This record gives sequence, C-alpha cells and structure tokens, in this order.
Amino acid sequence: MRVMIDLCVVPLGVGVSVSTYVAECEKILKDAGLKTNLHAYGTNIEGEWDAVFSAVKRCHEKIHEMGAPRITTTIKLGTRTDRIQTMEDKVRSVEEKLN
Amino acid sequence: MRVMIDLCVVPLGVGVSVSTYVAECEKILKDAGLKTNLHAYGTNIEGEWDAVFSAVKRCHEKIHEMGAPRITTTIKLGTRTDRIQTMEDKVRSVEEKLN
Amino acid sequence: MRVMIDLCVVPLGVGVSVSTYVAECEKILKDAGLKTNLHAYGTNIEGEWDAVFSAVKRCHEKIHEMGAPRITTTIKLGTRTDRIQTMEDKVRSVEEKLN
Amino acid sequence: MRVMIDLCVVPLGVGVSVSTYVAECEKILKDAGLKTNLHAYGTNIEGEWDAVFSAVKRCHEKIHEMGAPRITTTIKLGTRTDRIQTMEDKVRSVEEKLN
Repeated sequence: MRVMIDLCVVPLGVGVSVSTYVAECEKILKDAGLKTNLHAYGTNIEGEWDAVFSAVKRCHEKIHEMGAPRITTTIKLGTRTDRIQTMEDKVRSVEEKLN
Repeated sequence: MRVMIDLCVVPLGVGVSVSTYVAECEKILKDAGLKTNLHAYGTNIEGEWDAVFSAVKRCHEKIHEMGAPRITTTIKLGTRTDRIQTMEDKVRSVEEKLN
Repeated sequence: MRVMIDLCVVPLGVGVSVSTYVAECEKILKDAGLKTNLHAYGTNIEGEWDAVFSAVKRCHEKIHEMGAPRITTTIKLGTRTDRIQTMEDKVRSVEEKLN
Repeated sequence: MRVMIDLCVVPLGVGVSVSTYVAECEKILKDAGLKTNLHAYGTNIEGEWDAVFSAVKRCHEKIHEMGAPRITTTIKLGTRTDRIQTMEDKVRSVEEKLN
C-alpha cells in the first residue's frame, strides 16, 4: 500500500533547538530511498507503507541514541485506492484552481 | 520500543458519518491485544511499536475494503527511554497537579 | 460556530516533564467555562469558536509566562453544519456499533 | 504573539477531491496578507496569532458555505519567545546541518 505522510518529530529534554535531530531524520529518510520534501513544520514523505514506517521507527531510535529521552511526533497519513497521486500532483491540483 | 499513540482515522468519499469505520478499527485494535482508550477525537493506544503500527495498517486496509476510496489519518506518537509511563500515569500526573 | 477540538500543548526547553504546564492549561479551559475531557495524549474541548481559541491563546501565553521559551501544539478541529454533535455523542456512536 | 502554523483542512461529505476547497482557503490566507507556503499535506502560515486564527475561521466558514457539511482540520502551531524565526529560517537550519 502506497502512502503519503507528513512527519514532524519533536525531541524533548534537549533544549529548544531541534534541527540537529531533524537533520538526522532527513538522512535516514534519504538512505531509505524515500521521496521527501522538507518544509517549515515537517517533511512530506512518499513510499510504500512498510518502508515509510520502518524509516520513521529508525528516526525515533536514532534520536534516542543521540540523547533525547523523550520524543513526541505528529504524523498525517494518507492512503487512497481510487488512483495514484504524488506529492507534486497534490500541490499542482490546488495551484491549477488558483490560476 | 514501547509507544503511546493517539489515532484518528478519517475515511473520505463515504459521507459525513464515520463511526462505522472507527468501530471496525476499534475491533482490530482489540483483536491485536492492544490497550486502547476511545475519546471524542481519536483513540489512545499503548503497546510495542511493531504491534501498534501493524494494527494501524490493518485499519487502513479494512476501511478501504469497506469501500472508502481515500483515508486521511492523524497520529500523535510518543516514545521515551527515561521511564515507563502508561496512559493512566499521564492523566494522573496532570490531575494530581490540579488537586 | 460550534467547534470540537483536541488540544495537545508541548512546551520545549523545560525538560521532559510537561504535566505542570498541561495542568495550567486545564485550569484556563475550566475558567473559560469550556467543556473538556482530558485523555492521555491531549484534551477534548467543546465550545464556541472564539471562546475556544481565546482559551488556547491564553494557554500559550501562560506557558511562556511560566518560563517555556518555545511551544509546539497540535490541534484537531471539527465543525459541522448538518447537526449538533457533542463529545458524548461521538463516543456513543462508535460504542453502539461495537455492541 | 507571532505564530507559525501548519494547516490541513479536510471537508467531509463532498467526495474524495478536496483541492477546490483548499484553493479557496489559499485565497483567504493570501487576502489576509499572511505569508504562506503550500506543500503536499498542508500549508505553512506565518503571522500574528489573531490574524492567523481569524483566517482559519474564515476558511471553515467558506468551506461550509461551499456546501461541505463537515470539516476536520489538523493544525500544528508553534510559538517562541526566545527569538524570531521565519519559515525560511527553520528549513535553512536543517539544510545547513545536512551539508
């Protein structure tokens, strides 16, 4: 099953700056061969269910290894069976209606 | 890795009433032996990472099988390595400070 | 416009324990006369749009006053025009289908 | 109080295609003079608290006027008092650590 998710990982107990942790997640997602798009409040990720969630798990493991005792993450998760829709399709579909 | 998640599954393309679909998810979560607590905007779930996400995947598969062509889900996901904390612990911790 | 929201407020830069901050939010919500239900990963809140979001803003202000330099919050927000539906209605609707 | 939010508005009861509704929200956000960035699973918005949430309310009103009987929205919301940080700052901060 193909999924599109929006992932926002927030380590707690390590101060206010979280970009070092987010950067490590980006590396994990890239190494997993997943299509991603970083934005200001998370990362869009596209791929097969198991590959995507395996990478999300690896992100949690890595951030704990880096010293964060607690993590709270928010995920939006979309699946559809009627048609294939990429990240670019979704953005383009809105933009076409704006023009 | 132990996780606590808050799951809110929303089928699209099947009208405004979603409780039939949510009820099927509740059954899947119970059948998976997971500890759950249903509230008005989602379900708290506690368990091992793989068991929890395997059940979430089964929920998506089931809702598509029931006829929903599209699903958008929101998940909050917490892990911690400093100590074990149950759902009841989290609520009690806030309530103690209110009394 | 009547809303139901699920609010999860996470202060950053104050360590791993957040229940003191959450308890202060609970007080603000109660003082605002809003109907609430605390669960293990947030708080369900029911009320008029402006009253609810005014209280959410007050929660952020209060948590910053308490010393948290950064806050990341997750809100699920539902509105409907077809009928009035309370928190209890939503839970009951699912539970009826389970029995 | 300055906020950064990530907004994802999902109308229910209007079929599987939601881009027409999302496009109307984009117009409302632009008309409100807010800084925005559309991505594949939501829109980043930056501005003053009251201006941002007033626009979000207007989005819900508009989508109901367009015929959607129910809306479920997810919002991530960040505030900080230690420093000013734009959307571009957040992305740059992660990208610098990747290079």
